[in-house]
Amino acid sequence: MNNLILNPEIIIPSAQQDPLYNHYILITDGKIEKISSNLNPGIYPGHKLIPLPSSLVIPGLVNTHSHIAMTVLRGIAEDLPLESWLNENIFPREKKLTSEIIYWGSMLGCWEMISSGITCFSDMYLFEDAVAQATVKSGLKALLGEGLFDFPSPNYGNLAQGFKYTQYLLEKYSDHQLINISVDPHTLYTCSLNTVIKAKNMADKYNAMLSIHISETKNENELISSKYGKTPVQLMYDNQLLDDRLLAAHCVWISDREIELLAQTETKVSHCPVSNLKLGSGIAPLSKLLKNQVTVSLGTDGPASNNRLDILQDMKFAAILEKGIHLDPQYPNARTIFKIATENGALCTGFPKSGMIKQGYDADLTVLDISQPNALPLYDPFNYLIYAASVKDVTHTIVNGNILMDNRKIQHLDIDEITAKIKEISKIIS
Amino acid sequence: MNNLILNPEIIIPSAQQDPLYNHYILITDGKIEKISSNLNPGIYPGHKLIPLPSSLVIPGLVNTHSHIAMTVLRGIAEDLPLESWLNENIFPREKKLTSEIIYWGSMLGCWEMISSGITCFSDMYLFEDAVAQATVKSGLKALLGEGLFDFPSPNYGNLAQGFKYTQYLLEKYSDHQLINISVDPHTLYTCSLNTVIKAKNMADKYNAMLSIHISETKNENELISSKYGKTPVQLMYDNQLLDDRLLAAHCVWISDREIELLAQTETKVSHCPVSNLKLGSGIAPLSKLLKNQVTVSLGTDGPASNNRLDILQDMKFAAILEKGIHLDPQYPNARTIFKIATENGALCTGFPKSGMIKQGYDADLTVLDISQPNALPLYDPFNYLIYAASVKDVTHTIVNGNILMDNRKIQHLDIDEITAKIKEISKIIS
Repeated sequence: MNNLILNPEIIIPSAQQDPLYNHYILITDGKIEKISSNLNPGIYPGHKLIPLPSSLVIPGLVNTHSHIAMTVLRGIAEDLPLESWLNENIFPREKKLTSEIIYWGSMLGCWEMISSGITCFSDMYLFEDAVAQATVKSGLKALLGEGLFDFPSPNYGNLAQGFKYTQYLLEKYSDHQLINISVDPHTLYTCSLNTVIKAKNMADKYNAMLSIHISETKNENELISSKYGKTPVQLMYDNQLLDDRLLAAHCVWISDREIELLAQTETKVSHCPVSNLKLGSGIAPLSKLLKNQVTVSLGTDGPASNNRLDILQDMKFAAILEKGIHLDPQYPNARTIFKIATENGALCTGFPKSGMIKQGYDADLTVLDISQPNALPLYDPFNYLIYAASVKDVTHTIVNGNILMDNRKIQHLDIDEITAKIKEISKIIS
Repeated sequence: MNNLILNPEIIIPSAQQDPLYNHYILITDGKIEKISSNLNPGIYPGHKLIPLPSSLVIPGLVNTHSHIAMTVLRGIAEDLPLESWLNENIFPREKKLTSEIIYWGSMLGCWEMISSGITCFSDMYLFEDAVAQATVKSGLKALLGEGLFDFPSPNYGNLAQGFKYTQYLLEKYSDHQLINISVDPHTLYTCSLNTVIKAKNMADKYNAMLSIHISETKNENELISSKYGKTPVQLMYDNQLLDDRLLAAHCVWISDREIELLAQTETKVSHCPVSNLKLGSGIAPLSKLLKNQVTVSLGTDGPASNNRLDILQDMKFAAILEKGIHLDPQYPNARTIFKIATENGALCTGFPKSGMIKQGYDADLTVLDISQPNALPLYDPFNYLIYAASVKDVTHTIVNGNILMDNRKIQHLDIDEITAKIKEISKIIS
């Protein structure tokens, strides 16, 4: 069913527009054909009319940095120093991961994201073809990339095989309606500069995005500076690695000069405030990035360091954290945060015809129930959405006009099967 | 129905104890009679057995600082400098408040808190008798105090009347099962020192708690220091105002010396991280307070500055914010945050026989559905609760063995009536 007519109480078409009340959204072949206050549903017999009283429709939320199959490691080890968390808890367990585990972990991640009103995500992890298969099955959109390291991976083996695997993904999913493939050198300290350059060349050849973690921790910056005599962003700039097809995750420890370089090169940034706080990494300079016109989006990071895949939650965290640390309640405002979680998210994941409710755009939509107590009274839909909404309110998640969650019921996934598989996997992992 | 037998998959009795699996909780006359792994429900025919497969039972969550009737102002003005938010938006609208508006605003707040798994709260606002009536109707527990100011109040008129009104509340609700009354001088800058001392004398006379906002903003500290030559906590200490019956909200701008004074006097603190961030007030020194053995609890503050009444959300914010600003993922850990939101909350609101699942304690309990995707897999119930749980998971809220929310259905409140009243009120207020 890609032909729908939605009739919600309120629509927020984009951050730049004021909310619309009692309008119809006409969706034909998965695309938004019209938004109108006077539309006669009777003249569209092939369209399913969905009345949505007490509902708010927004462009689908986008999660631009994650490792969704890390659901299988969620909550297994917490409140630890970063090194023992990674070296003693996460890395040894990641050695047990298989394509099948990644598939079911991704299914769980997709289930959670659909429940949370996310329509599109970006993922960098292992066995990404399994992630792609789960994503397609779930109906979500994604930008997916296999993590490339100079050391062997449990999936592809050595790095040369990693590049071949990435090439395989790029070719397998070229022109796929739901899947974009990125080339994903993991970090500047797990990849040599040469590896990152090679990855960039591959991305250029396929006109693909490049994704990388950058300046996540102070320690990372010190390592890179001592090795190359330059901070990570400067190093990337000097090697022509920054451009509008780079999605840089984290960017916590960056200087004013580096922000200028990101802006100048139109590099895209995935801001991951919850993970950065929880792992004790620090706080990225969100306001400065935004005020310098950098295209910033929001990422949850993996469920082992968030521990949710919930952009509604992270929008609030992002907004109030920035106000609190700068002792300024004015910025960023609700519309700015809305923009980074929707329109900017779509740009960062390579789906430029998504992220707004606009004629000709993909019908990627999230519906929220505004009859819940936290939505009352509703003076301003933006303020409700950023500061008061929760996953409890999400009723429908729609991608390309396909309803992935219908009135809080997940549609294409067998929840009982996923639950049973995850319980089995947790015994292997723990 | 105050006689229940709960049989959940998991129980967290307290922060100090490990989770219990497949135990029964026997509740008789609203109190916890027994927690046992082998209990025969058949021999308790007067008790209702509630099987709770895929559920986690915890002590009820406590919200120790709020102005719940500010639900009616939620989201009306955001992203503004504190002065224009207060002076141009909140204060003028507060002049329109009446006892009836406060009653319905409180009903909405109680509905939201019950939905969020909160069993007990503290409130300081206007027309607190109306708040008390809504609270009793809802079945929640609360510590309630009428805000006292040196200037006239829309409720009681001049300050002398405010003290009389407080005395009336203290006498009306003495020995009430659900309601404790506190004496609530608003702040050190809206009350003279003499007013605060007078309030303290009244609190002492009735063996009641004293509640006050303290050191919420840098500006407040500067005002008090310029007026008295002392910081707020030092001023309170020097006037014998600090003791174990003082509930001090916020405590953002406090020095190491002041933390020592709070610890030494056993003063209780309500930490309100979300409100403090959102209003750009700053970040309270949570770790230092805890490491100095101060009894810290968690407050949402009013819905105009949070904008939710959701301790589950605020537990996560409190935990990760502290890790992020100190670049230390180890502290506070999940158990510490759990303790402040339950056991410490009960102590701060004057219900010492609540806050733990323990024989002889009040059956104040919150039940969470652990079959949701964010709860999978569940390696550690504490980690799930602090980092991954959401209001969506809350299924039952129980106070004194009364089920206020039963399998996500609110019991004693007419939700349609509250919704209609709030919609009417919002037109008056906006």
